[in-house]
Amino acid sequence: MAQPTIAAIATAPGRGGVAVIRISGPDAFAVAREVAGELPEPGRFRFRRLDVDDVLVLAFQAPNSYTGEDVVEIHTHGGEAAPRAVLERCFAAGARLAEKGEFTLRAFLNGKMDLSEAEAVIELVDAKTAKAAADARSRLQGERKARYLSLYHRALELGSEAEHSLDLDEGELPPGFMARLDAGVTALKAEVGAILARAHEGHILREGALVVLSGPPNSGKSSLMNALLGTSRAIVSDIPGTTRDSIEEYLDIGGYPVRLVDTAGLRDTADVVEREGVRRARELIAQADFVIDLTRNVHTKCDLGRVPGRLNVSAVTGEGLEELKAEILRNLKLLPGREATPSEREASLLGEALHQLEPTDDPVILANRLRDAGDALGRLTGSVYSDDLLAAVFSRFCVGK
Amino acid sequence: MAQPTIAAIATAPGRGGVAVIRISGPDAFAVAREVAGELPEPGRFRFRRLDVDDVLVLAFQAPNSYTGEDVVEIHTHGGEAAPRAVLERCFAAGARLAEKGEFTLRAFLNGKMDLSEAEAVIELVDAKTAKAAADARSRLQGERKARYLSLYHRALELGSEAEHSLDLDEGELPPGFMARLDAGVTALKAEVGAILARAHEGHILREGALVVLSGPPNSGKSSLMNALLGTSRAIVSDIPGTTRDSIEEYLDIGGYPVRLVDTAGLRDTADVVEREGVRRARELIAQADFVIDLTRNVHTKCDLGRVPGRLNVSAVTGEGLEELKAEILRNLKLLPGREATPSEREASLLGEALHQLEPTDDPVILANRLRDAGDALGRLTGSVYSDDLLAAVFSRFCVGK
Repeated sequence: MAQPTIAAIATAPGRGGVAVIRISGPDAFAVAREVAGELPEPGRFRFRRLDVDDVLVLAFQAPNSYTGEDVVEIHTHGGEAAPRAVLERCFAAGARLAEKGEFTLRAFLNGKMDLSEAEAVIELVDAKTAKAAADARSRLQGERKARYLSLYHRALELGSEAEHSLDLDEGELPPGFMARLDAGVTALKAEVGAILARAHEGHILREGALVVLSGPPNSGKSSLMNALLGTSRAIVSDIPGTTRDSIEEYLDIGGYPVRLVDTAGLRDTADVVEREGVRRARELIAQADFVIDLTRNVHTKCDLGRVPGRLNVSAVTGEGLEELKAEILRNLKLLPGREATPSEREASLLGEALHQLEPTDDPVILANRLRDAGDALGRLTGSVYSDDLLAAVFSRFCVGK
Repeated sequence: MAQPTIAAIATAPGRGGVAVIRISGPDAFAVAREVAGELPEPGRFRFRRLDVDDVLVLAFQAPNSYTGEDVVEIHTHGGEAAPRAVLERCFAAGARLAEKGEFTLRAFLNGKMDLSEAEAVIELVDAKTAKAAADARSRLQGERKARYLSLYHRALELGSEAEHSLDLDEGELPPGFMARLDAGVTALKAEVGAILARAHEGHILREGALVVLSGPPNSGKSSLMNALLGTSRAIVSDIPGTTRDSIEEYLDIGGYPVRLVDTAGLRDTADVVEREGVRRARELIAQADFVIDLTRNVHTKCDLGRVPGRLNVSAVTGEGLEELKAEILRNLKLLPGREATPSEREASLLGEALHQLEPTDDPVILANRLRDAGDALGRLTGSVYSDDLLAAVFSRFCVGK
């Protein structure tokens, strides 16, 4: 069954110099020819003067393209009118609008990437800091893929050994068979656990750490917040859906996105519902990766006098700011070393597998558990997948990716 | 003096599948080689695996590029982290960040386009409707350029004839000389005026027409507004800096962007400063291209009973909506026929020229006026330009265009 040919604007919407319309599928060349006339040879580009714009056309022949299908890119001026006009021509020529992530879904279905790499694509696009981008990048280049595949295959092997043991009487099993099986399960569990231990760092890289600033009015919270912002590398992008008002700011500390919240702001802005403000502040403090408490662990305005036993900082002189940032980083409880982190989805599957990889004396239960563990591990790379799994992964994407 | 090599992200910022970094200048190939390794031949593209991303590289050899200089494009995944990382590599390799519109400025300076075409580039990017885009497009393809150049050259010729007349005694002038000069000035003035007459349409295409909805509470204003929105093609893009709250909406009527304002909303939301609301409403009505006055020219809820002598419309049945839109279009006072409109800047220069092209019996004054008119007409295409003029044109651009 041939796939339909899809098209979408692949660049971000809005004001810009260039926009890219991507067309992929068995009829991509035919559609593009109808829209833009004679195509360049694959690997080449050419200018075409269309009535709607002067465009640049690139042709990619299957399988040497992002999706693994025939692909044509048409580059127009930016903004919305020109790319939209070209996209509408593509529809008139028989393409349909690509769904969210459908180009990458096709890349997965055509074996150009596995699911862990596909997820890394959107995490690279959404990366908030350079370190988060590097993490996504290493997964996109397959750092996790081989390890996930090996976990999956080991679970399958152990599972088939466990199944095999069910067909035999106890006396027929080779000596030490169950002990070796147990050792294999324990080793597999340890490795799954080791990867899962990186999930916390992955969560912080993707969602940001929560640092709460707490203290009475006029204790210098706003000045400290501004001083931290001023000496930090700005966050790569605004995080969608967050308010950037005075009580909440994002900064980049050591490559980790940090959400810095001033709880006093919550109380100040909620004078009619003071109690609600206090409740929210307590909740934030409970969830925080680190609390800067100006009555306990940090003393600001240290240019006017120091307090022993606390971290002394000054928003005026900048003293202590780097130490405070180092203290925040320490409290993120990151593991030493650098390796690619699992995504939230992968962490959930690893957790499922870990839960199954419990030793047991009952070979029937063991075989069942290994089957479930193998199923979870297979879904890491998409070796095992369902429509629901694909829908969950690719719904996070934007149209055009 | 060699131009510095410039680089910028040429796509709109934000979430997207693809981002484009553009590098232009004498060292573009050297910079790109340092960032992305071996380059493709001009006219070809190739994949490169960088540590920050997998990228596609395109090379354009001067003068066959947008700017007329050597240009390299590096395409990364979208979002901000990957393109920003590549851009920073470009800076490290010696490029500097392009200023607003600097790529197009270079295209102008290298004779790839004139100023009227350069301005059309940003107007195409900012076009709010397909018709506005088509207008920019026809100017970008040079529809105005030849005519502007001819106006300029005619002003220069007439000016030099007038100068010539100053060197001669009255008796030495060929018979009918001053009459022919006068006729030339009058013809030039008529043509300038004819183009200037299109400025009103250009203004509406770029800024939108103002239609004000006026009437007492419960006269059906909101329903009428929603009905007009529902039956209109949505505007191509949100207009930056405008609020899209309940009292103001943009719609596309016959290809013209129309800003529809409900003055009642102004009054409703300003109960403490009622007088200010009324003042603003009066001001809007005075500026409006058309007023839908539910007490005078339009009767809504006509499904419940008609009012003679007015345009009867119904938000419920849709009756009369197309007639109302046609009535709005008629009131925009557009000229018949289709030709490219002058930009605001061009209209201002045409107005200056028109002002100078007044007949006079004094050959000294005539020569002066023709010099000033020629100067204004020369600035249309950039045949005459100053740094200030270029700064004014290109400051409207975004970085990366």
